[in-house]
Amino acid sequence: MATDIRTSELKSPIDVAEYLFRRLHEVGVRSIHGVPGDYNLVALDYISKVGCRWVGNCNELNAGYAADGYARVKGIAAIVTTFGVGELSAINALAGAYSEYVPVVHIVGTPSTISQRDGMLLHHTLGNGNFDVFANMNRDISCAMAKLNDPHEAATLIDHAIRECWVQSRPVYITLPTDMVQKKIEGERLKTPIDLGTPANEPEREDYVVDVVLKYLHAAKNPVILVDACAVRHRVLDEVHELMEKSNLPTFVTPMGKSAVNETLPTFGGVYAGDGSDPGIRERLESSDLILSIGAIKSDFNTAGFTYRISQLSTIDFHSNYMRVRYSEYPGVRMKGVLRKVIDRMGKLNVQPGPVAHNDIPKQDQHISKDQVITHAWFWPRVGQWLQPKDIVITETGTANFGIWETKFPEDVTALSQVLWGSIGYSVGACQGAAMAATESGGNRRSILFVGDGSFELTAQELSTMIRHDLKPIIFVICNEGYTIERYIHGMDESYNDIQTWKFKDLVAAFGADPKKSKTFQVKTKQEADDLLNDKEFSSAPYLQFVELYMPKEDAPVALKLTAEASAKTNAKQ
Amino acid sequence: MATDIRTSELKSPIDVAEYLFRRLHEVGVRSIHGVPGDYNLVALDYISKVGCRWVGNCNELNAGYAADGYARVKGIAAIVTTFGVGELSAINALAGAYSEYVPVVHIVGTPSTISQRDGMLLHHTLGNGNFDVFANMNRDISCAMAKLNDPHEAATLIDHAIRECWVQSRPVYITLPTDMVQKKIEGERLKTPIDLGTPANEPEREDYVVDVVLKYLHAAKNPVILVDACAVRHRVLDEVHELMEKSNLPTFVTPMGKSAVNETLPTFGGVYAGDGSDPGIRERLESSDLILSIGAIKSDFNTAGFTYRISQLSTIDFHSNYMRVRYSEYPGVRMKGVLRKVIDRMGKLNVQPGPVAHNDIPKQDQHISKDQVITHAWFWPRVGQWLQPKDIVITETGTANFGIWETKFPEDVTALSQVLWGSIGYSVGACQGAAMAATESGGNRRSILFVGDGSFELTAQELSTMIRHDLKPIIFVICNEGYTIERYIHGMDESYNDIQTWKFKDLVAAFGADPKKSKTFQVKTKQEADDLLNDKEFSSAPYLQFVELYMPKEDAPVALKLTAEASAKTNAKQ
Ligand SMILES: Cc1ncc(C[n+]2csc(CCOP(=O)(O)OP(=O)(O)O)c2C)c(N)n1
Ligand SMILES: Cc1ncc(C[n+]2csc(CCOP(=O)(O)OP(=O)(O)O)c2C)c(N)n1
Ligand SMILES: [Mg+2]
Ligand SMILES: [Mg+2]
Repeated sequence: MATDIRTSELKSPIDVAEYLFRRLHEVGVRSIHGVPGDYNLVALDYISKVGCRWVGNCNELNAGYAADGYARVKGIAAIVTTFGVGELSAINALAGAYSEYVPVVHIVGTPSTISQRDGMLLHHTLGNGNFDVFANMNRDISCAMAKLNDPHEAATLIDHAIRECWVQSRPVYITLPTDMVQKKIEGERLKTPIDLGTPANEPEREDYVVDVVLKYLHAAKNPVILVDACAVRHRVLDEVHELMEKSNLPTFVTPMGKSAVNETLPTFGGVYAGDGSDPGIRERLESSDLILSIGAIKSDFNTAGFTYRISQLSTIDFHSNYMRVRYSEYPGVRMKGVLRKVIDRMGKLNVQPGPVAHNDIPKQDQHISKDQVITHAWFWPRVGQWLQPKDIVITETGTANFGIWETKFPEDVTALSQVLWGSIGYSVGACQGAAMAATESGGNRRSILFVGDGSFELTAQELSTMIRHDLKPIIFVICNEGYTIERYIHGMDESYNDIQTWKFKDLVAAFGADPKKSKTFQVKTKQEADDLLNDKEFSSAPYLQFVELYMPKEDAPVALKLTAEASAKTNAKQ
Repeated sequence: MATDIRTSELKSPIDVAEYLFRRLHEVGVRSIHGVPGDYNLVALDYISKVGCRWVGNCNELNAGYAADGYARVKGIAAIVTTFGVGELSAINALAGAYSEYVPVVHIVGTPSTISQRDGMLLHHTLGNGNFDVFANMNRDISCAMAKLNDPHEAATLIDHAIRECWVQSRPVYITLPTDMVQKKIEGERLKTPIDLGTPANEPEREDYVVDVVLKYLHAAKNPVILVDACAVRHRVLDEVHELMEKSNLPTFVTPMGKSAVNETLPTFGGVYAGDGSDPGIRERLESSDLILSIGAIKSDFNTAGFTYRISQLSTIDFHSNYMRVRYSEYPGVRMKGVLRKVIDRMGKLNVQPGPVAHNDIPKQDQHISKDQVITHAWFWPRVGQWLQPKDIVITETGTANFGIWETKFPEDVTALSQVLWGSIGYSVGACQGAAMAATESGGNRRSILFVGDGSFELTAQELSTMIRHDLKPIIFVICNEGYTIERYIHGMDESYNDIQTWKFKDLVAAFGADPKKSKTFQVKTKQEADDLLNDKEFSSAPYLQFVELYMPKEDAPVALKLTAEASAKTNAKQ
């Protein structure tokens, strides 16, 4: 098949697999997620060689979720799977990363180019000699594809794929046939790092847009800033913070933008999501005459069921690859450069203060006692009081994802969730990846997971991977007898929304945790929960901790009830 | 969107979802596997209405595996998932069903036709308004697609899809938008059952082929029969048994054909897989001058690494949609009709007896003692002595899938495994589906699972679904410290072939089993294993039983070692 490069032609010969993993190391990847399979085994030998760690997840879907979580903390991640069975098991996680703009490099070990050419009837095939089916399935959820079938182009394809992954902040798909793993290519190339820079805007176009933005900004009487997910994903948070601090404008985040900005800044006002917002927030934002909307993804769950009441006439949209001022669009003008110049040239603005975010528990829920059940209204602000700077907070689709709107974060928190893709079970894998990333970044960041009992059951075994690698997450499983969020959409008392009752915390021991290096808890009342959060030992996260947190089946954050109702309506519309 | 049918035009109006589930009930489905999601919730309300059970799996991949297992026992199965996140989680299981010819109806609850038309930014989408991506991914692994976007064609599409699923014995993909669930269609149609018959061959062509087959059959001096997977999947086992009994020819099965024939018949000779076969079997088969090969799938693992030594000149291939006699091909001539006539017109044949299958433990492994570790050479024939008629035996890719070659089955056993697709974790889901199917078919069939510790970790939570539905499988987890089959392919001592050590049997209680309705065991020596298999109570399978079966890390069935070596070679070939 692919012709070898004559080794004598190469200055520093290097094996294709080593080249690939060295490049991943270069862009910051230190742990490689995935599951072995005979089509990738030989490649795995190179991982420790380049100074990376092999995670070895329990299954590929979980590995994909973990890679996603790792990428959200470290900037980029990689997962290795095996042809067919492995890659398809992971595909939902990669689709999620695509949907939510998370840069994950997916490397698939495939049969050799010779077996493919000959259409051999191999295991993990459809039995029809078609070796392209699985790659084709990945096309629409990858921002670049690289089939490493030829040593002559392998390095170029690898570099291109990693660059696209980073710049577009989306998954790329790389196939590595077994006979290519050890093919020699030019290692000299590694001396030049891959260029990960965001391309600059054309200056004249950029200046034009900046002028337009500034014109409206100066004319505005009570402008505000609204920060959404793409501000995080497309790496403009430094600019956003400068904008906040220099302008003093009231700033809000959407649910998907949670943790994008420093919530302890005096101008931070809280979460805006249309009707799902606190009334004070909604009024301030919706009465503003100019909203600087940065990185918006106006999806159903991110807007509490499309309940924004904001006119496009009072909106300036900042996006990774276009700007929109009122109805004027500027394709190809990237927000990064525009933000920079807007900050530099801002001058004096009209500033009307907004509400101030807080973690106050609503009056009617404040009472704490031994016999009082834990309510969402009480719990989430209470969590906000307990969180520490730099915490990584992972929340699952379900009550947790809506509850977290009511948690005001300390500084430098990183929040992970899938508000758009919303694949349940995600958070458990993501927690493993995030916790691993945290150990690599140093600084003793805590990883804290809030996951529903229903969701936890999809991917529970990734707890085992956390134990295996001695990670120290704090895991709260919200035990509320099943799929509460679904009950609010349809079938409040239907048995299909029930789940098998597990002894959740017993899994820690069953998955092999050392009792001296782990601890489990069960809290059923506000008092117990409060005591736990007040416990210094617990809060110092010395080892893996697992909390069964009991909440009533029919309790949910207000925003969830609203969004669920809107979803049910959208679904039923004739 | 889709225009309603005027209810006054309908004789017996019925909702689309009800029509669909009634059709599934008609073809034999009684349990519907899957996981709820807001795009399928309303449809789920119809399942109990038509007299089916909702299984409610822990996750969609497991649900897909379970549906596959259910279909292999009951003939056909159905799984319901939700748009995007759910269907993609299951896609690997459906690809497996496609590869291995298993009829599974996959029903995906999607956003309403109106939301799709409007390209709404809904949860579980890629955020780009493209609602076709996931359906497109399913095209190459579905033998029919039905998008139920219009009440006028819904019934036709449903009937067509179910028929194709059955006849082609492969998955079909059906989308059910939320706004179509309750649309009224004509229920009168249900009075005519879907025609599931295999189309007959054109008589003249069929007779021609039968003559050719008989010519060679009569000329042969020592013909044999070799039965493979497609004989099972394309439902010619009655014909195969008649052929065996009337002809008295020595009959063998391939690994994928295991359990296709009654292994207690005196002419049954055992498993043929090239070099992986018992020497006596190999010699008899490879020296035969005519092999009637029925439903062959000559994949790598099914042939111990392509080690058949059979000439096409002495082979007649029977397939579901073509026949091949030596090198003459007869496309479109189905084996079913040909087999029927060959049996009827067979006359007298030359019969040379073959070896007789047995469950004798090899001499050097016979010794049983308290301190002797359990070896594969001992274990698998011992299992054969213990099995009962009608048992359902599920084996996982890994040592179990190769070990089972050495187990001779009693009558009416059904064996499940994925020799071609080989997705690990499959067997745990499949066991749930098979055990559920067994309860529906009556007759107290035992469901017995042999799964490796590594594979079990991928899908362990489906144990919970078995507990939830009070199923009574006997589960053997082969505890051998990780991925033994992979060690034999590459990396015998590499840590990527290790796994986290679980307290496997403790999961039974953690997943909520009633201690009075379940029992767990740990066996580490031949004596302990022997005692357990001799235990009447255990063998009567009164409730769910879970056995940790310890075997040495570096022990494996001979056939596995051979196949692994061949695989490593194929992978490395330059
Ligand atoms: C992979 C996947 N399958 C199914 C769904 C549909 N779904 C969304 S939320 C949910 C229930 C979550 O229940 P739980 O985690 O217990 O959350 P809570 O009770 O806190 O709402 C389900 C089944 C999904 N989003 N993703
Ligand atoms: C979904 C999937 N991921 C990865 C693989 C590659 N693979 C094949 S067998 C195997 C190891 C199985 O180990 P175990 O179940 O313990 O079997 P045993 O030790 O008995 O051989 C792996 C990782 C696969 N076949 N399917
Ligand atoms: Mg719940
Ligand atoms: Mg094992």
